[in-house]
Amino acid sequence: MVFNYPNGKRFRPRTNEITNEKNVVKKEKDLSFSNRGKTLEDEINETNIYYLNQQKAIIHKKPVPVQIVKVEYPSRSAAVIREAYFRTPSTTDYNGVWNGYYIDFEAKETENKTSFPLKNIHQHQVTHMKQVTNQKGIAFMIVRFSSLDRYFVVPFDILCEAWTTMEQGGRKSIPLKVFETKTFEITPGYNPRIDYLSVIPNLIANEE
Amino acid sequence: MVFNYPNGKRFRPRTNEITNEKNVVKKEKDLSFSNRGKTLEDEINETNIYYLNQQKAIIHKKPVPVQIVKVEYPSRSAAVIREAYFRTPSTTDYNGVWNGYYIDFEAKETENKTSFPLKNIHQHQVTHMKQVTNQKGIAFMIVRFSSLDRYFVVPFDILCEAWTTMEQGGRKSIPLKVFETKTFEITPGYNPRIDYLSVIPNLIANEE
Repeated sequence: MVFNYPNGKRFRPRTNEITNEKNVVKKEKDLSFSNRGKTLEDEINETNIYYLNQQKAIIHKKPVPVQIVKVEYPSRSAAVIREAYFRTPSTTDYNGVWNGYYIDFEAKETENKTSFPLKNIHQHQVTHMKQVTNQKGIAFMIVRFSSLDRYFVVPFDILCEAWTTMEQGGRKSIPLKVFETKTFEITPGYNPRIDYLSVIPNLIANEE
Repeated sequence: MVFNYPNGKRFRPRTNEITNEKNVVKKEKDLSFSNRGKTLEDEINETNIYYLNQQKAIIHKKPVPVQIVKVEYPSRSAAVIREAYFRTPSTTDYNGVWNGYYIDFEAKETENKTSFPLKNIHQHQVTHMKQVTNQKGIAFMIVRFSSLDRYFVVPFDILCEAWTTMEQGGRKSIPLKVFETKTFEITPGYNPRIDYLSVIPNLIANEE
């Protein structure tokens, strides 16, 4: 099956996957001095490289899934994909291992200042995180409030609660207040940029 | 960076990623009655779907990483990738979680009847599996001897030993005898097709 990109959205450029920016949607403008126009994905990738180099954890972003239809093999040069389509991923974007624990998360940013709209999350991601939790993996979401320059690690059970409320016709967003009281705030640093591993022990303690 | 496909090989069609076979290299011919021309990847994917449906484990194949250069957005239809290149993966193909354990493996098949040539494995895969093992994850390789219709789960330490021997100028393959004596043979079944989870407790016992 071929899908349009999730929710009919267009493909969003990611620094490590797009080389030729003029052909694609423009990157978002710089939002604040402190994150210097980096996307949350850039920040997480930098963090993961730091963890990898320090051998603190092995966590990678999954490639964007594409359905390849046509490939050309020009002589003496690399194969070129000439027709392909974006597929809907069936998992979250990041996973890996830390100290024997399976780590699995999704990273999302919002421009909102008072709440995080749940439309940023897809059903398949929630389903996947629930399955991971059932297998005793550690599932969570990293949310950046870009306008506030604040970062939170949201345990899956908090996300799940909000999701269930929405499904029952309730609120379609998670208020900032819930982030401040029920999740773990991360102060961004130089290196690692977003030290989300530092709160994993709290997530584990929560579950046990 | 743009790479040719690993080891200069051409892209190999995978049932779930290629929809239009006439444009790509033809699939390999059926090799035996019992695997009915399925690739090992097909068999592993079927097995993973079984595990997922039974909620026995959450294990997915990672998408093939591609560097996207040009995307077109025809009106009223899905975005089309018009120029993209294969990138060298930095991990193995499969990972996930089973009963709190991080699972990470590579699947390889050979037509050889007496040994498994190590040229089927890449340095980055060995490096990645070593990192995973250091973080207390469970890393292994699934090898199919297609002509023999035999399947083995190879603990990372056995692969690592053979790899080190090769790097020191020694043998460039793993003899079938080593598979028979030091790895775990899987008898293919109907469903799950390749029940590799059944030997994970042995791998864990080995490491502890």
